Amino acid sequence: MDEEMIIGKNPILTALRAGRPIHKIMISDQLQAQAAKDIQCAAKKTKAVIQRVPRKKLDQLSTGKHQGLIAFVSAYEYQTVDAILQRAEKKNELPFLLLLDELEDPHNLGAILRTADAVGAHGIVIPKHRAASLTETVAKASAGAIEHVPVARVTNMAQTIDELKEEQIWVVGTDEAGAEDYRTLDGQTAMALVIGNEGKGISRLVKDKCDWLVQLPMSGSISSLNASVAAALLMYEVYRKRKPLGDQ
Amino acid sequence: MDEEMIIGKNPILTALRAGRPIHKIMISDQLQAQAAKDIQCAAKKTKAVIQRVPRKKLDQLSTGKHQGLIAFVSAYEYQTVDAILQRAEKKNELPFLLLLDELEDPHNLGAILRTADAVGAHGIVIPKHRAASLTETVAKASAGAIEHVPVARVTNMAQTIDELKEEQIWVVGTDEAGAEDYRTLDGQTAMALVIGNEGKGISRLVKDKCDWLVQLPMSGSISSLNASVAAALLMYEVYRKRKPLGDQ
Repeated sequence: MDEEMIIGKNPILTALRAGRPIHKIMISDQLQAQAAKDIQCAAKKTKAVIQRVPRKKLDQLSTGKHQGLIAFVSAYEYQTVDAILQRAEKKNELPFLLLLDELEDPHNLGAILRTADAVGAHGIVIPKHRAASLTETVAKASAGAIEHVPVARVTNMAQTIDELKEEQIWVVGTDEAGAEDYRTLDGQTAMALVIGNEGKGISRLVKDKCDWLVQLPMSGSISSLNASVAAALLMYEVYRKRKPLGDQ
Repeated sequence: MDEEMIIGKNPILTALRAGRPIHKIMISDQLQAQAAKDIQCAAKKTKAVIQRVPRKKLDQLSTGKHQGLIAFVSAYEYQTVDAILQRAEKKNELPFLLLLDELEDPHNLGAILRTADAVGAHGIVIPKHRAASLTETVAKASAGAIEHVPVARVTNMAQTIDELKEEQIWVVGTDEAGAEDYRTLDGQTAMALVIGNEGKGISRLVKDKCDWLVQLPMSGSISSLNASVAAALLMYEVYRKRKPLGDQ
């Protein structure tokens, strides 16, 4: 477990260049000498073990187009919601979480990880299904933040919200209209900010569970902001309440 | 001029579905009946004129793989910097512009257009070269904001800054450290916010011309935010200074 296979020359080269922790690369004994050399050179400075194996072995491991090359890489590790809460406790800070309700775009997830790191959020909770997960694209868009912000994956976001509420954490969602201005957000509360799907917003079930709904004021013609932009405005609102300008 | 050709069946179908203002579609007389029908159906609700032409005519118009189909569409129109300033004047507002210094990612440009619309910025200035321009991808990421926020393209950003300064517009850039916190930004000033390139930040030449440099506080491990996130935080800072919570 916690291990992924990467198959094919270019994906493996990309992963090596991105610094993914590849620990083993299997090369078919029938692979062209030049292709094998390219991979060996790229892997030189890593800890990857290179193994020459019969082509049949690779065929058994993968049904995809492996082109004679399979790399084994540690998958990005997920944490538990508990671990995220413990992180807050250890730092002696009020919990500050993000709940991403079926966010789909990996670039948004990457940008949100980056902002979460910047504001000192303790972690992010994502659903197991129908949502962007921790992939290479997300890692790249996160500019390294993926290594610093714990991400928990849950099967049932509504249930997780109930559990957070039991821990006296306020769950704050966004609504397009009618809600309070986001500038009324309070910094002196344990808080979980909910960010919805790019197209559909926050699902009804999750929205109903929110303790508080805020809106981002918009004075133009369109009705919503990019999800990672909305998340950043909310996160920095909590940040600025927790660290007011005069205090620094 | 101000007209683009879109060639090939799928690109034309995509443009039709995206509601691009296609005014004419040329169909080769040798095109399969079914393919012609698909296009005609998709174009039915638009104002596009359908023309049957000899295949040779299409070959003369495009050297690409037109697959017997060429559509003519109005290109996204660029405005002038003057037009942007006049927009502010007409609204009787202090000018509020964005200068994007070689921003490359179309998703970022789209998200920035969206936020610019939301905060009521009067327009965006981009350089003609080495920068994301108004394409279909940007239009999609902008969620329609591309139709509402004027964009000017300039050859020389540094020169444009000089011209803006003559109009008593303050030019504000971002710096990673040492500068004032962005929360010190003033709303009662005509302002142009400078956003740098995703990787390299603001170029030295442009940074030197800034009247004021601000920083976004970051308490984590990484050193910069996504460009559209940084732009949004700055834009909303101006917005909130211009429209304080109590005033609404």
